Amino acid sequence: MPKVIFTPQNKEVEVEKGTDILKAADQAGLYIEGDCAGRGTCGKCRVKLTAGENTEPTSSEKKHLSASDLEKGWILACQRTVEGNMTIEVPVQKDAHLRKTSLAGGVEKLECDPVIEKIELKLDRPAVKDQTADLERLLGKLGRPDLEISTREIASLPKLLRGNSYNVTAAISGNRIISVEPGNTTEQVYGLAFDIGTTTIMGSLIDLTDASVIAVSATTNPQNAYGADVISRITHASESAENLKQLQGKVIEAVNKIIKELMKETRVARDRIYELVAVGNTTMSHLFMGIDPTYLAPAPFIPAYSRALEVEAGELGIRINPGGRVTFLPNIAGYVGSDTVGVILAAGMDQRSDRCAAIDIGTNGELVLKANGRLMACSTAAGPAFEGAQIKHGMRAASGAIESVDYLDGDIVVKTIDDAPACGICGSGLIDGAAALLDAGLVEPSGRFVNPEENPDKVADHFKKRLRKGNGGYEFILVNAEESDSGEDIVLTQGDLRELQLAKGAIYAGLMILLKEAGISETDLDKVLLAGAFGNYVRKESALKIGLLPQLPLDNIIAVGNAAGDGSKMALASKAIRNRAAGLPEKVEHLELSTRPDFQDIFVDAMAFQ
Amino acid sequence: MPKVIFTPQNKEVEVEKGTDILKAADQAGLYIEGDCAGRGTCGKCRVKLTAGENTEPTSSEKKHLSASDLEKGWILACQRTVEGNMTIEVPVQKDAHLRKTSLAGGVEKLECDPVIEKIELKLDRPAVKDQTADLERLLGKLGRPDLEISTREIASLPKLLRGNSYNVTAAISGNRIISVEPGNTTEQVYGLAFDIGTTTIMGSLIDLTDASVIAVSATTNPQNAYGADVISRITHASESAENLKQLQGKVIEAVNKIIKELMKETRVARDRIYELVAVGNTTMSHLFMGIDPTYLAPAPFIPAYSRALEVEAGELGIRINPGGRVTFLPNIAGYVGSDTVGVILAAGMDQRSDRCAAIDIGTNGELVLKANGRLMACSTAAGPAFEGAQIKHGMRAASGAIESVDYLDGDIVVKTIDDAPACGICGSGLIDGAAALLDAGLVEPSGRFVNPEENPDKVADHFKKRLRKGNGGYEFILVNAEESDSGEDIVLTQGDLRELQLAKGAIYAGLMILLKEAGISETDLDKVLLAGAFGNYVRKESALKIGLLPQLPLDNIIAVGNAAGDGSKMALASKAIRNRAAGLPEKVEHLELSTRPDFQDIFVDAMAFQ
Repeated sequence: MPKVIFTPQNKEVEVEKGTDILKAADQAGLYIEGDCAGRGTCGKCRVKLTAGENTEPTSSEKKHLSASDLEKGWILACQRTVEGNMTIEVPVQKDAHLRKTSLAGGVEKLECDPVIEKIELKLDRPAVKDQTADLERLLGKLGRPDLEISTREIASLPKLLRGNSYNVTAAISGNRIISVEPGNTTEQVYGLAFDIGTTTIMGSLIDLTDASVIAVSATTNPQNAYGADVISRITHASESAENLKQLQGKVIEAVNKIIKELMKETRVARDRIYELVAVGNTTMSHLFMGIDPTYLAPAPFIPAYSRALEVEAGELGIRINPGGRVTFLPNIAGYVGSDTVGVILAAGMDQRSDRCAAIDIGTNGELVLKANGRLMACSTAAGPAFEGAQIKHGMRAASGAIESVDYLDGDIVVKTIDDAPACGICGSGLIDGAAALLDAGLVEPSGRFVNPEENPDKVADHFKKRLRKGNGGYEFILVNAEESDSGEDIVLTQGDLRELQLAKGAIYAGLMILLKEAGISETDLDKVLLAGAFGNYVRKESALKIGLLPQLPLDNIIAVGNAAGDGSKMALASKAIRNRAAGLPEKVEHLELSTRPDFQDIFVDAMAFQ
Repeated sequence: MPKVIFTPQNKEVEVEKGTDILKAADQAGLYIEGDCAGRGTCGKCRVKLTAGENTEPTSSEKKHLSASDLEKGWILACQRTVEGNMTIEVPVQKDAHLRKTSLAGGVEKLECDPVIEKIELKLDRPAVKDQTADLERLLGKLGRPDLEISTREIASLPKLLRGNSYNVTAAISGNRIISVEPGNTTEQVYGLAFDIGTTTIMGSLIDLTDASVIAVSATTNPQNAYGADVISRITHASESAENLKQLQGKVIEAVNKIIKELMKETRVARDRIYELVAVGNTTMSHLFMGIDPTYLAPAPFIPAYSRALEVEAGELGIRINPGGRVTFLPNIAGYVGSDTVGVILAAGMDQRSDRCAAIDIGTNGELVLKANGRLMACSTAAGPAFEGAQIKHGMRAASGAIESVDYLDGDIVVKTIDDAPACGICGSGLIDGAAALLDAGLVEPSGRFVNPEENPDKVADHFKKRLRKGNGGYEFILVNAEESDSGEDIVLTQGDLRELQLAKGAIYAGLMILLKEAGISETDLDKVLLAGAFGNYVRKESALKIGLLPQLPLDNIIAVGNAAGDGSKMALASKAIRNRAAGLPEKVEHLELSTRPDFQDIFVDAMAFQ
């Protein structure tokens, strides 16, 4: 079988002839980014063939790579198959390191009332006159003869008791003993809170004796290889049971990787982690649990389940205490998942009395409104534009991403993360960019670039070089080739603006429908909460300028950080909050926008930049 | 959808066009044998197409069926799909028939009040205006939103509901849905009752709609390869985790083999079997569950657990419905297991008001006494002599075993099972043999053979040839070499008599201790029940003669058959009886004979044949 070497990671793999390079990399344990599940439409899986026979570029490659790039050996990993030995250079991913601040949520102190209870026991030794069995001896001492316990734990009891002078500690979750441990381990009680995003998976290790967050880590969701959006993942999963298993395997693997990192950082032993509480959108929840998500995709968008699912860690292959409990919080609807439940918990939406909207913009957009005693939620088909997908030079918020764009002193000025040479544009940069171009008069409220040929007066001279004709209309050069990281111009295209309009229009229209249903107008809102990493970085002025947010005083628009993740932490640390979460699917009214005859009209209006 | 009728079972099923007949039979709840999982390589799934369109035979059919068979309509179920209405004849398996009597217990009619409940559901289809998730839709219809269910069952729900017009049947066990099935399967509810003996494993398949036993099968416990007695098995298991796993694997394998035979005989489909209730001694219970039995062997003989253990069939690898529940009834002590719990249930020991003793003689001997409002149990180190172990020509009760020995008209006459040439002596033959030798004056009450040299008058002349000196004292030739199956003399030795004395002495002494504890004497007993296959075959007169049983009128000594197995059937068929079983470890006073200072004295007395 031909061998492929990936550099600079120096991973080797032998694969069947005809395997595509994307799959080969996957086998080698390397993740190559892409948004289109290998269909050749996104052009993001650029790699460089440095040894081995090159073949004719495909039409997709010709579209996404310049002639000079092709000359240099750049190819698209999804477009080429392995036919002989080859060496492939994989450019180092820029998103490997997320800024830690983007992981933190807004909740300062977690309520500490954990589900897990630990009790140290000193048992009497058995004797011929006291032949009580080991398990019943333990349960008797606990005074809870009806506690459940797995055969695995019973099996280890005899040696455990005799090896530790009958002094052990029981970890109890609800009506179940999940672990029996040597000696006194009551000080060691840990849990994990996870936010399983379509794009990013974040995990926090929490000391459950005081509910303190002791370490945080994140990684890219490796399901990305099967498409950036949930629909691609559902499509892949619905094709076969193996595919579903594969997607489940990917996310479990990523979770285990994060757990390993958290353990490494904190030195907490695996067996002392007893719980994992996760949130994520409904598709992520289904895939995590290995449950067929097929019918989430077509109308009427029906999930297999809505309740919180709790399973044993060992059953899922999650590497914590094998008897540990893994709970995925409940979802509300096919496109309003437990991530929204997390937002509701973190923002206290179910308990607050002001009129408040929460907007969570991740790969999908979810909205929650609390007003006039009602708690309502909906999802919008915002698409992943704010995470850089579908945007020509879109990228995630990593080093070198253009994160802000200003119209200053008559010029358009950009700033990148870490001030590194620009390699793309992230969500906040995109919104800033549109706002700046509006300010500069280069884009009309309708979203069209001003045509510099028809309206030469409207385009300042120093912009004439930067506003040029591209494949799909005009495009504006934010950073020119000489200054960019890739050596090509970083542009904002007419297509990019259209994507942005569709995304922001969907969100704004969704909010309008919720407000209408509650019988209030946008100015009646006391607060708008921006959840998600995006909310931390978006410039509120720009968001208001392009009409993404309701017209409220800036002070009433509040970024609350990763509220979904915060919700998972809160539900991990507190039994009461976990119970509150369980009741939310019943409490929240879900509005299905596609059934609203007024939606299209509002949506079309909402697309304009005004 | 086309309809398939299966005869002679008269099961009808409607299936999607293109479904293969094997699958259709499965949906109808019928099991069609095969070894190749439908690949067409084994040729075992022969069925006859008696109505409906016949098509060209496949190459697999041509290979496995003769031209004349094909002519007559024989086909392979795995090779044909349902394209229109058809009638299929499924040949009824003619199986090796075990002597049913040896398997049957004494209970005539089982109480029918099963734990498993089946409910057919016709759900409303989801719509954009009714986006309730599949699971919540199902639970809502059941009116039991809090029922538990495995992720495996949730995972299969979406396709199951949509493939069956939202008409399904839920199988519920307690607060758990264990299976959701296409269409109406409420008529198909089966369970298994097992008696896991140290030597023999017996299984009964029970129709839980009317609690009728529809098939019975048995096999040797393959753990026998690691020793005939429980101590050998414990020793092996305690040597390593692999050994324990190996012994567990052996018993699970034997159980699966019996299940396959029961399915073959009755055509019941695997997925329609929802429960398995087992009894066995405490060691068998530990090994079945894969739980370390090490500390059962040395004093103070402590089991790892006493309660009934219930686990999912899939977890143990028991091949019934993967969500099916496997319950091992509780044990009372290290050497008083759930087999004794079964005896207590079957004999109603916990409910009856007379003075009654039950004696279960298997590989070990357990005794139960109900008297003066107390329910007591003990175990005796009887050893497996009654099953032929430790006896020179001992064997199990199989063809050719000497099953009875008489002192008739001054001669000693033997009879073998099936009147086959003698190849050994089984438990009832051993007891008869000792009694006959006592009658003939050849054995003294002390258990010693009369010495023909010292007391030539006491040995009739025609016995002088048959009573000879062996290696360990005298021995009596029951069958001489010319007439035996093996071509060697079949003898009863002095050593055999000693083994018998030890065994019967242990049992009798145990009973005496129980009676003493209850403050009554043996003649105060109203009834003695003999449990176990042994009780069916032992001649009561002989047992009285050698002093194995208390001196009561013959009518008050009653063989009750496999009472332990009966108890498992009763607990399978009735929730109330299962609950009774769960309460027995609390209710039964366990007497540890080794702690009784009076035991040795009584035991030595009890060894004499008088």
